[in-house]
Amino acid sequence: MSKKVAVIMGSDSDFPTVAPAIKRLKGFGIPVEVRVMSAHRTPDAAAEFSKNAKAEGFGVIIAAAGKAAHLAGVLAAHTTLPVIGIPVKSSTLDGLDALLATVQMPSGIPVATVAIDGADNAAILAAQMLALSDDSIAAQLEQMKLDMEKGVALKNEALQEKVAAL
Amino acid sequence: MSKKVAVIMGSDSDFPTVAPAIKRLKGFGIPVEVRVMSAHRTPDAAAEFSKNAKAEGFGVIIAAAGKAAHLAGVLAAHTTLPVIGIPVKSSTLDGLDALLATVQMPSGIPVATVAIDGADNAAILAAQMLALSDDSIAAQLEQMKLDMEKGVALKNEALQEKVAAL
Amino acid sequence: MSKKVAVIMGSDSDFPTVAPAIKRLKGFGIPVEVRVMSAHRTPDAAAEFSKNAKAEGFGVIIAAAGKAAHLAGVLAAHTTLPVIGIPVKSSTLDGLDALLATVQMPSGIPVATVAIDGADNAAILAAQMLALSDDSIAAQLEQMKLDMEKGVALKNEALQEKVAAL
Amino acid sequence: MSKKVAVIMGSDSDFPTVAPAIKRLKGFGIPVEVRVMSAHRTPDAAAEFSKNAKAEGFGVIIAAAGKAAHLAGVLAAHTTLPVIGIPVKSSTLDGLDALLATVQMPSGIPVATVAIDGADNAAILAAQMLALSDDSIAAQLEQMKLDMEKGVALKNEALQEKVAAL
Amino acid sequence: MSKKVAVIMGSDSDFPTVAPAIKRLKGFGIPVEVRVMSAHRTPDAAAEFSKNAKAEGFGVIIAAAGKAAHLAGVLAAHTTLPVIGIPVKSSTLDGLDALLATVQMPSGIPVATVAIDGADNAAILAAQMLALSDDSIAAQLEQMKLDMEKGVALKNEALQEKVAAL
Amino acid sequence: MSKKVAVIMGSDSDFPTVAPAIKRLKGFGIPVEVRVMSAHRTPDAAAEFSKNAKAEGFGVIIAAAGKAAHLAGVLAAHTTLPVIGIPVKSSTLDGLDALLATVQMPSGIPVATVAIDGADNAAILAAQMLALSDDSIAAQLEQMKLDMEKGVALKNEALQEKVAAL
Amino acid sequence: MSKKVAVIMGSDSDFPTVAPAIKRLKGFGIPVEVRVMSAHRTPDAAAEFSKNAKAEGFGVIIAAAGKAAHLAGVLAAHTTLPVIGIPVKSSTLDGLDALLATVQMPSGIPVATVAIDGADNAAILAAQMLALSDDSIAAQLEQMKLDMEKGVALKNEALQEKVAAL
Amino acid sequence: MSKKVAVIMGSDSDFPTVAPAIKRLKGFGIPVEVRVMSAHRTPDAAAEFSKNAKAEGFGVIIAAAGKAAHLAGVLAAHTTLPVIGIPVKSSTLDGLDALLATVQMPSGIPVATVAIDGADNAAILAAQMLALSDDSIAAQLEQMKLDMEKGVALKNEALQEKVAAL
Repeated sequence: MSKKVAVIMGSDSDFPTVAPAIKRLKGFGIPVEVRVMSAHRTPDAAAEFSKNAKAEGFGVIIAAAGKAAHLAGVLAAHTTLPVIGIPVKSSTLDGLDALLATVQMPSGIPVATVAIDGADNAAILAAQMLALSDDSIAAQLEQMKLDMEKGVALKNEALQEKVAAL
Repeated sequence: MSKKVAVIMGSDSDFPTVAPAIKRLKGFGIPVEVRVMSAHRTPDAAAEFSKNAKAEGFGVIIAAAGKAAHLAGVLAAHTTLPVIGIPVKSSTLDGLDALLATVQMPSGIPVATVAIDGADNAAILAAQMLALSDDSIAAQLEQMKLDMEKGVALKNEALQEKVAAL
Repeated sequence: MSKKVAVIMGSDSDFPTVAPAIKRLKGFGIPVEVRVMSAHRTPDAAAEFSKNAKAEGFGVIIAAAGKAAHLAGVLAAHTTLPVIGIPVKSSTLDGLDALLATVQMPSGIPVATVAIDGADNAAILAAQMLALSDDSIAAQLEQMKLDMEKGVALKNEALQEKVAAL
Repeated sequence: MSKKVAVIMGSDSDFPTVAPAIKRLKGFGIPVEVRVMSAHRTPDAAAEFSKNAKAEGFGVIIAAAGKAAHLAGVLAAHTTLPVIGIPVKSSTLDGLDALLATVQMPSGIPVATVAIDGADNAAILAAQMLALSDDSIAAQLEQMKLDMEKGVALKNEALQEKVAAL
Repeated sequence: MSKKVAVIMGSDSDFPTVAPAIKRLKGFGIPVEVRVMSAHRTPDAAAEFSKNAKAEGFGVIIAAAGKAAHLAGVLAAHTTLPVIGIPVKSSTLDGLDALLATVQMPSGIPVATVAIDGADNAAILAAQMLALSDDSIAAQLEQMKLDMEKGVALKNEALQEKVAAL
Repeated sequence: MSKKVAVIMGSDSDFPTVAPAIKRLKGFGIPVEVRVMSAHRTPDAAAEFSKNAKAEGFGVIIAAAGKAAHLAGVLAAHTTLPVIGIPVKSSTLDGLDALLATVQMPSGIPVATVAIDGADNAAILAAQMLALSDDSIAAQLEQMKLDMEKGVALKNEALQEKVAAL
Repeated sequence: MSKKVAVIMGSDSDFPTVAPAIKRLKGFGIPVEVRVMSAHRTPDAAAEFSKNAKAEGFGVIIAAAGKAAHLAGVLAAHTTLPVIGIPVKSSTLDGLDALLATVQMPSGIPVATVAIDGADNAAILAAQMLALSDDSIAAQLEQMKLDMEKGVALKNEALQEKVAAL
Repeated sequence: MSKKVAVIMGSDSDFPTVAPAIKRLKGFGIPVEVRVMSAHRTPDAAAEFSKNAKAEGFGVIIAAAGKAAHLAGVLAAHTTLPVIGIPVKSSTLDGLDALLATVQMPSGIPVATVAIDGADNAAILAAQMLALSDDSIAAQLEQMKLDMEKGVALKNEALQEKVAAL
């Protein structure tokens, strides 16, 4: 079985945004652990988790947070595991604050940032990392790509009727 | 003597930006300690410093950082002292990234944010906080306000010649 | 009893946004006075209030305004008390106008700016300032921090069920 | 002779930006008075000036300021004269902060905003206002328009040589 | 009776946004004419209107448009009357496009820009311009200012009950 | 009969946004083919389509996509036909991401970009291109312009009643 | 010989930005006429030019302007020829104002917008339009694409030495 | 020896920005191949490269591009390897266009985005991915983290002298 993926969110209100990542990882059969942990409200817990993550069998950490989104950066500060950041859109500024606070990391501490609210892609990216040494995940990723391609083709066909009706 | 003010910068390259804060605090006779400490490169040192700051006689913490500026937020996470954030302009995005990463803090953990590169104001704000229980600083702040007012009046007079020459 | 905190809003339509600050301050047992006062519609009243605030026992002024949010800056111009600015999101530009108009103060007149619509944090920041010379407030802030930490831990536990159900 | 125009700048460092407005007004033969006055450093002087402006023979007030540019709004709060705002570009954010802080005025207190660093247009706009009851200025504005048109035609001719050389 | 004010909108869908300007002008007893005219769909009509506006007794032109809002600029190109621009928020970009397209006019052709969707202020600004040579409007503007001030005071009183109930 | 126009969308969820383009082209009697094809999910199909488009009788390609909108650029990379890009607004950032990803093409590979969600204009632009060698389309474009002009005049008349009722 | 292309710039200061378009068109052997004409300073000349452009043998109009860039839109209002807009970066806002003022056109009047300062692409886009009925231009575009491809390959080879030296 | 990392840049003018990534990877002893390849000028070469990358022994692809930065997305479309995107700042918009065009990928095709011009972090992120199955790289990353920490401590000491001199 592959290494585990941690999915950390800064607030339980982020759960609906983050859920697609969890589902996608489960779908790949990748073991996933989910935590609510805040860079600001539970900084020690976050630091502790990150420091031990590698030893506890995690391979990748996914962190989702909104506004001045420090969570991914704080976790990245304490580990050499790859950390994926999901900027979460909140009530103002349409997620631009979270995007910049997640992606604009200083030299030395990268955060692999995906699109605002891009939880599904965070999971796929984690799977791509694990697939570097796990052929089963690699095969699933290849299959997913083929399925996507077929899905578009089917949607294209389905659309023709609507087009004709215009 | 008043409580100490800590001036923390994320990188020593921020020193020219931060220097006016240090000078202003010294000018007020407020004891100041200056540190290079990074939320990402030395997270444990930053956490440790912040946890002990109150016990070690600090009253206010000023933190300056650029890009995904997490420093002020990380320090604020570990203390109940007021933390003042200076967003530092870096090579891209004109400081907007640092501003949003500093000011858009989640509920529970405020950072008192000043203008981009606004180090002088960070020091004055720290002095205003300390002045709540220190009449000497309060008197100096009153005097500074009067001096500023006079300074503008002098500049106004000096300008009239240039205006006449247009 | 601690010094009073003034909560000033530019329009009574800002009340729902500002209410969390008032509640939080009351919760800390900090005496609070609330006013509707506009930098533009009642500039003399605002100036008068600010000039007298220190003498009337205020320790901190919190000001909330939207759009070209001048209120905090105008109040700061007339006092040496610390002034906290809450940028309020209005019908266009998602609060970015209010944020920039509040935070980008010129040298000499700081406004301690919190997040857009960040009223709760404005109150906590005011309490942190007053706590510099008030041990009771300081103790409450420490307790609030512990409670927040526990709150996150509880939410984390509660989330596990939802995660399992995905 | 027409009513006077006041040109107010928040800092004497704005003088090079504002100078074209002064020159343009002088060119129209409109009496102009120039002041350095700050909404934040000399708020009482600014309020006093604005309250008395109409009685002292001013017809229009032009105000130039950068960053959290409150000057035009503060002057507008104290007068019913039209106030023209020039947002001044400063060291960060390319003038966007000054633009939003000048133009996004709340209902009741307009500021007639021109382009960032648009001092020349501020003067022309002031002249257009005064021309409503001053035929000499009106005639000069008509002439200026014709001259501009001719100027473009001349530049067009001059360009053809450069084009041929490409 | 004062000169007329023209209120031009780029599309009849702007009417709800523009209506407050028309009401305000009527309230001042200022004669107002309203037109739908587009810089892009009826450019000749717009040019013609603007060229003749002065001769037909207009003193000020107010123009409201969204997106790439050229209307105010196009009208200003054909007249020496002051032109006030109202940037209208449309379905994307929150009015920022209309604001920049209205305010960033090149040297020589000013547009007096008010806030996004700031129709009421456009009317007040027009009244301020006309009041330079019309004492009745000037008196009404003074009265409006006093009424606004009283209105804020009343709202302040009314708020106290809500505050007490928190 | 004129050359064909291809209308490509990145996802079938873009159909409501794109439909006005299809209707407009049909209204002009221009043969149109519609496809769902993704620069990212079906890159080979997109490349293949674009490479063959000219040979298969297409004259213009219209491409609509949201977020990191690469579709128009990818199609443009494989053809010398003019490619028109419609940036589609999605759930965050109000279409600014799609606009920049569509319009900021590097030297050598232009994309003719229209407004965010500006499908109708994309179709008109395509018709203008085809009209360069098709007098029937040219005549229809002239007629459309006259109709638009009349439409505005009618709306202007209809508005007068609403204005009178204010 | 193909139809002519007009290259219009709002100010002769835009010439260095626009020159690559003129050179590229000349390189294709496309007849080009260049004019300085302003939507604001010479609106009648601009309207007149655009109305007659088709009759005078123009096939495409390219318009370059900065700030509140109305030029392309104003030209498009008076013709059914395709109009290509080049947003020009000026001293503030990095060209964002010109981009939005050029691209966000209302329904009915498209402007084919290229990148900020993207003059070369404007010319290529014009050539692509003319190539729809001109095989010689079409052939040159195909060749240019091949040359670009080879150019990248050569640069790739040349780079390997630098890489080895790192 | 670990899998290879490909460093692809859209233009050889990006080399100075990208060089730190190459140096960092060489420093880790990771085999690296560098290519100039453009999503727009050499789309087939880019697609081909990406399709074969896994089979040719690459583990991670790093792609750097500016403006409408499609390169990373186009490469990601053709592989299941993790693709890291470096948005490159170009002459306008300060890299915001490249950031959004790189990070805002649609569901299914992630790009792991680092900061604008963040080449060094791209290399470290690639190393973190490879380290999941390569203990030597993992050990080097741990060492680099310790070195960074010490580096900050040394800079902190060095700064104290400058602080004392203020």
